[in-house]
Amino acid sequence: MTSPTTIFDTVESESRSYCRSFPTVFTAARNATLIAEDGTEYTDFLAGCSSLNYGHNDPDMKQALIDYLSADGVAHGLDMFTGAKRAFLESFRDIVLKPRGMDYRLQFTGPTGANAVEAAMKLARKVTGRHNVIAFTNGFHGVTNGALAATGNGYHRGGSGMPLSGVTRMPYDGYYGPDIDTAAMIAKQLDDPSSGIDAPAAFIVETVQGEGGLNAASPEWLRAIAALAKKHGALLIVDDIQAGCGRTGTFFSFETMGIEPDIVTLAKSLSGMGLPFALVMMKPEYDIWGPAEHNGTFRGNNHAFVTAREALEKFWATSAFMGEVQDKGDLLHNRLSAIADRYGFSLRGRGMFRGINTGDGDLAAAICKSCFEQGLIIETSGPEDEIVKVLAPLTIPRDQFERGLDILEEAFDRVLTKQTAKAA
Amino acid sequence: MTSPTTIFDTVESESRSYCRSFPTVFTAARNATLIAEDGTEYTDFLAGCSSLNYGHNDPDMKQALIDYLSADGVAHGLDMFTGAKRAFLESFRDIVLKPRGMDYRLQFTGPTGANAVEAAMKLARKVTGRHNVIAFTNGFHGVTNGALAATGNGYHRGGSGMPLSGVTRMPYDGYYGPDIDTAAMIAKQLDDPSSGIDAPAAFIVETVQGEGGLNAASPEWLRAIAALAKKHGALLIVDDIQAGCGRTGTFFSFETMGIEPDIVTLAKSLSGMGLPFALVMMKPEYDIWGPAEHNGTFRGNNHAFVTAREALEKFWATSAFMGEVQDKGDLLHNRLSAIADRYGFSLRGRGMFRGINTGDGDLAAAICKSCFEQGLIIETSGPEDEIVKVLAPLTIPRDQFERGLDILEEAFDRVLTKQTAKAA
Amino acid sequence: MTSPTTIFDTVESESRSYCRSFPTVFTAARNATLIAEDGTEYTDFLAGCSSLNYGHNDPDMKQALIDYLSADGVAHGLDMFTGAKRAFLESFRDIVLKPRGMDYRLQFTGPTGANAVEAAMKLARKVTGRHNVIAFTNGFHGVTNGALAATGNGYHRGGSGMPLSGVTRMPYDGYYGPDIDTAAMIAKQLDDPSSGIDAPAAFIVETVQGEGGLNAASPEWLRAIAALAKKHGALLIVDDIQAGCGRTGTFFSFETMGIEPDIVTLAKSLSGMGLPFALVMMKPEYDIWGPAEHNGTFRGNNHAFVTAREALEKFWATSAFMGEVQDKGDLLHNRLSAIADRYGFSLRGRGMFRGINTGDGDLAAAICKSCFEQGLIIETSGPEDEIVKVLAPLTIPRDQFERGLDILEEAFDRVLTKQTAKAA
Amino acid sequence: MTSPTTIFDTVESESRSYCRSFPTVFTAARNATLIAEDGTEYTDFLAGCSSLNYGHNDPDMKQALIDYLSADGVAHGLDMFTGAKRAFLESFRDIVLKPRGMDYRLQFTGPTGANAVEAAMKLARKVTGRHNVIAFTNGFHGVTNGALAATGNGYHRGGSGMPLSGVTRMPYDGYYGPDIDTAAMIAKQLDDPSSGIDAPAAFIVETVQGEGGLNAASPEWLRAIAALAKKHGALLIVDDIQAGCGRTGTFFSFETMGIEPDIVTLAKSLSGMGLPFALVMMKPEYDIWGPAEHNGTFRGNNHAFVTAREALEKFWATSAFMGEVQDKGDLLHNRLSAIADRYGFSLRGRGMFRGINTGDGDLAAAICKSCFEQGLIIETSGPEDEIVKVLAPLTIPRDQFERGLDILEEAFDRVLTKQTAKAA
Repeated sequence: MTSPTTIFDTVESESRSYCRSFPTVFTAARNATLIAEDGTEYTDFLAGCSSLNYGHNDPDMKQALIDYLSADGVAHGLDMFTGAKRAFLESFRDIVLKPRGMDYRLQFTGPTGANAVEAAMKLARKVTGRHNVIAFTNGFHGVTNGALAATGNGYHRGGSGMPLSGVTRMPYDGYYGPDIDTAAMIAKQLDDPSSGIDAPAAFIVETVQGEGGLNAASPEWLRAIAALAKKHGALLIVDDIQAGCGRTGTFFSFETMGIEPDIVTLAKSLSGMGLPFALVMMKPEYDIWGPAEHNGTFRGNNHAFVTAREALEKFWATSAFMGEVQDKGDLLHNRLSAIADRYGFSLRGRGMFRGINTGDGDLAAAICKSCFEQGLIIETSGPEDEIVKVLAPLTIPRDQFERGLDILEEAFDRVLTKQTAKAA
Repeated sequence: MTSPTTIFDTVESESRSYCRSFPTVFTAARNATLIAEDGTEYTDFLAGCSSLNYGHNDPDMKQALIDYLSADGVAHGLDMFTGAKRAFLESFRDIVLKPRGMDYRLQFTGPTGANAVEAAMKLARKVTGRHNVIAFTNGFHGVTNGALAATGNGYHRGGSGMPLSGVTRMPYDGYYGPDIDTAAMIAKQLDDPSSGIDAPAAFIVETVQGEGGLNAASPEWLRAIAALAKKHGALLIVDDIQAGCGRTGTFFSFETMGIEPDIVTLAKSLSGMGLPFALVMMKPEYDIWGPAEHNGTFRGNNHAFVTAREALEKFWATSAFMGEVQDKGDLLHNRLSAIADRYGFSLRGRGMFRGINTGDGDLAAAICKSCFEQGLIIETSGPEDEIVKVLAPLTIPRDQFERGLDILEEAFDRVLTKQTAKAA
Repeated sequence: MTSPTTIFDTVESESRSYCRSFPTVFTAARNATLIAEDGTEYTDFLAGCSSLNYGHNDPDMKQALIDYLSADGVAHGLDMFTGAKRAFLESFRDIVLKPRGMDYRLQFTGPTGANAVEAAMKLARKVTGRHNVIAFTNGFHGVTNGALAATGNGYHRGGSGMPLSGVTRMPYDGYYGPDIDTAAMIAKQLDDPSSGIDAPAAFIVETVQGEGGLNAASPEWLRAIAALAKKHGALLIVDDIQAGCGRTGTFFSFETMGIEPDIVTLAKSLSGMGLPFALVMMKPEYDIWGPAEHNGTFRGNNHAFVTAREALEKFWATSAFMGEVQDKGDLLHNRLSAIADRYGFSLRGRGMFRGINTGDGDLAAAICKSCFEQGLIIETSGPEDEIVKVLAPLTIPRDQFERGLDILEEAFDRVLTKQTAKAA
Repeated sequence: MTSPTTIFDTVESESRSYCRSFPTVFTAARNATLIAEDGTEYTDFLAGCSSLNYGHNDPDMKQALIDYLSADGVAHGLDMFTGAKRAFLESFRDIVLKPRGMDYRLQFTGPTGANAVEAAMKLARKVTGRHNVIAFTNGFHGVTNGALAATGNGYHRGGSGMPLSGVTRMPYDGYYGPDIDTAAMIAKQLDDPSSGIDAPAAFIVETVQGEGGLNAASPEWLRAIAALAKKHGALLIVDDIQAGCGRTGTFFSFETMGIEPDIVTLAKSLSGMGLPFALVMMKPEYDIWGPAEHNGTFRGNNHAFVTAREALEKFWATSAFMGEVQDKGDLLHNRLSAIADRYGFSLRGRGMFRGINTGDGDLAAAICKSCFEQGLIIETSGPEDEIVKVLAPLTIPRDQFERGLDILEEAFDRVLTKQTAKAA
């Protein structure tokens, strides 16, 4: 007898993963709600790993896409000029770049974050004539070989089946505890001509490490890294794929940090409704690509241009949304603090990009499992999957957000009480 | 004063390319026709580099997607179970695999061809515990670092800014002319323990090299390569990203070649209407991935599941479409032969994947430019961009196809007559 | 008109170096004295960079070699059995290994330290099936590509003309100052599955970094590294090429450190009189080489077997020599302390392997130049060549040693007084 | 009970090799004769793999070295000026370079062939700013990681325990049989911008591949390779370590080939009596090394300067020796031809660097074993060790040479008759 999920087990590769945690078939989704085929509704605190910052199927984006489809708008145009691309470029320039006083060129790479990272690393090497990219402990930048070299996770690195090269690993902010200034360490190694660290083409850094465990770098540290890059003739790449598009409370996660990256990568929530889409921004003086030098069939997803433009117009034309996100971020902080304090756990992250470090992957998994049973989809991150991470849509209604947090809190209580009971 | 394309020049990266050949803004597209914002219609012999085998905005796929959107179908679900994915898996199993007696597991990678290639190469290395992948002269497999190592094109390779490793290059079928059996050469090197070729993890091969110049391998050669792979414990990866999905007349380009690849990569036309989508097929015994070992945010594009399923149901449930493609392929062959014969050029390719080798990149460019002026979008390929390549939608109406070929023929005549005139 | 050194300038490569600091032609040498062709005698505080721990032309070694030559002893025998090799093996076993309770197999690699390091790294990779070797800041292990990857010096690394791979760099003991435990840092990174450090095949470490600036690791730190290696399934390679053969006061520099390396490399003073000779020692369980798997024409230099055996018999059969070296090491310490204290410099190193950190490469060079003018050959080391390093033969007569140190002290005074005068 | 070789089995590493074929302890050697400790005399047709072209313990070289030792000549001087080095440079300039109209700078690298190869490859990369070195099937250049990447032998490559990079493999002259011009193949790939072969920094080639099976390149092919190097901006490195110093009948193996290498490596017989010694020669315009950029403790072995100079003065000051070698080469050719013809085998090599291809490694081993039993030391080479190779000292007395060849011939007859008998 076949169950509704038999075909996945028999035909889909073992590489499938999230479906193992949430073994039900989803058929529809609206804002922060995922709906299974049996009608069960789930609140989504995973949000496509921050690809759904504006929730599922935002009605305006959806309508814009239906309209575009109905008018036979170009869906696939390689990197030819299309009206949809032009409109996106105009919105991005007018809503994102200009108000922030930013001057960048935009490159639409293959529509995955990893592809944007590959392009960014290639460009930095091309600009500097150096091969060495400095990446950080617990950084996550994708799993294609160039990006994977910069990714810290050993499980993913092992998947490459060969040594990865071209990257030097350095400790992230706070990696050795609050008293050790890792930027000063890196400075010492770069100043030392015999340290064994080749002159860097670039630093690639996340301001908050999503997969790495919601480690948030301080503005001081980021500025020190930016200064190091400048001093040593390296480019500063901010990988804003997970932290960008409002997740931390501003459009770019680095806006308030006092740094000006040379290259920025965006993907995930950029399209607004979860369509594949990726972007590399580079300072104009570094835009030394030849035509199609980094290419790809799906660079410039026109459906995504349509929805992404709608997202910019709807959420970023004024500061209202930013204020709302910051308020929700405060709520999140307060609710998670209460839980963390109760059990002696520590908080991680900033904005709407926060989690609780339970210190134990099994415990965190048990909590997430308990949440799912109560209708909440939530996942872990961190080196040992020990962080319970909240990635709710930024647009989640406040009451649904609070109910989701209630479920989360109850799950902590349930699991930890059971543990205590067992131990007793 | 700004022109309608000023913003592209000022905001988009220098990496943009096709727009340089076709400097007009497209706003709509139907089947084989691209429509510019001034209303000019162009016949599309580029078809998204074979991503639009079923044309632009196929009405059934479009409707299926609009319906899905209207019902708030899940757009982004990471790799969770969705109804759309299940329906696609069922169709792929029933329409593609079963009738061909094939047994493969399907892995939805990040939605670019390069990502599928990266996954395929990683998997082959993981399965064999070897690092060396054999790739071929003029092969094209993408530009992320792992795939780029397998790509022959020096311009793209140079873009990486660092030496690429893990790949040994071997001559493709016919590379040294018709009298030299390159498979026998490879056999000699692999049999020779002191040849300097490390034991291979895999061979990665296109049955017809699209970017490399429409070089079509013979069935005998492909079988020899398959036998070599087997003999030496290597996996055979067929990169069917450009040649697959009907381009050569059958769903897979290798169906009639007498080989059984261990791994197959698909992308481009797989979604049916040009949406980003990629797939790795592997024999079940090689599906040794751990969960999420190769992951990516946009793996499993649900919109693409919807349209891809529609494409399978519509075009591949019976053999009618295959017959139609083969007929058009014959027409294409006849028309191109006539042109080639007139000027002493040679033909390349097979099925609806053909071109004329003009032996001169400037000449080929002039022909394509002349076509564009007459309303035909067509491009070149090959090491020196010397091949004029016809990649019309397989669904192109016969009369539009013939008119397009008329334009092409006239362009050859116009450009070559002018050349002769100049020379005289 | 040609000078006595014209031919060097016109025929020898620009890679020549020491001759630039000591521009005179040497023709003879005895113990700690080098004699120029004009009869000038120099005291040698460089000692072939620790290759002449027993001085130049030790009369017993010299006589043994003359006898061997006179009897037509086999000079070159590839790795065939020779009487000279057997005698060396017996002496090494009986004088070096047995009294120390050590059990190692001996591999005679190509007769350079770099070749021994290459063999050691290859063996560790072969044993563990891993590629990643952990090397340290300021480490120096040779300049062939495998060894060079482990060498920290950027000038030498740059000479390779390509990225070097297979090595992760970690901070040496004390690298970040006395308060930071770098072994604990490495432990954290190795314990963290997402730190981005691949599982190590080996650690390669010098107990005192000669070229790196006479940095001496503490026994505690070395034991911590040894424990880390064991915990993580990596081999511990001690590169004792410069610090071994008595330089620190014991035959092996690690004897008193409480560690048992899995692999040890020796070269430099091993032959006793400066003949090319290198050795890899490995624990028997790791001797998994196939015959000639790491080979080389000059592996097993028979002349060196003869002199090396004489060195072992003469200097290491009893503990007298060790006592003498330790006494001289104390003298050296006291004399250097006096100088360093006078000028606020710090001391480096241990045993007869010590130097003064002047903090300034130009200053250190001026001091060495001044010494040479007074008949003392001495050199610098360290990342900025800022360390004045004393590498006198261990056999230097005490009065000559003191006179040499007098010259050194005067040079410090002369150069630093001049500096002060200038500044005033 | 211990045998005379027990200590080798118990203390020396498993990497030992030639001693397995010749399990006796040698104690003395004169010209072409090796003498075991039991007094048995062996004729040496191995000659230290061409390191003993002038035989063992040439009396003049020996005496020169004894005189040098007796006068306390500098044995180890790093790369300081010594009288011995100067005398060698003068002789090399006057006897080798000037008469041949050659202009090269000399670099004394670490005293192994591999070290010279590493330096040569590094220099070519530094000069061109490219990483890719083209090496050939069945080439042998040493086993340190940089050189090993250029070595074809899979057994040795496997010893590195990691992927080797920076080298592209191309087919040597005649690799695919006499009718296929491999230089033309390489030309095609280098002319093709999409062949996947990165622009080369250098070609590294042996004129006769010693370890690879005594494959001798034709002058036409070598000139074609030289022309390709020039056309594509690559340096031509001739690795003359095994074929040089007279082995093929002239001092350099390429003298009569009509090529002018940019870089030449020498080692093996350069010292004249088998002492470790290596040399890189580069055209002056490529001598862009910085001081000590490629360094090493034993660079410039002064004992070898003494014996090498004696070898040049004794054997190369006139053309007499060259004539003698050519005569012996003819004799060798005639004797081997007779054997090869008898059994349908083919000849390989040129000059005094010849062998018989038996096509079967077991057969070749049996023949060599049979020779050893009759007092002749001889070895195999080739991918399957199927070539019986004659590497007699060039100075071997003619009658001893003929007696050795008699033994060889009898061994062929004995082994092959036995085989035929078995088969019958």
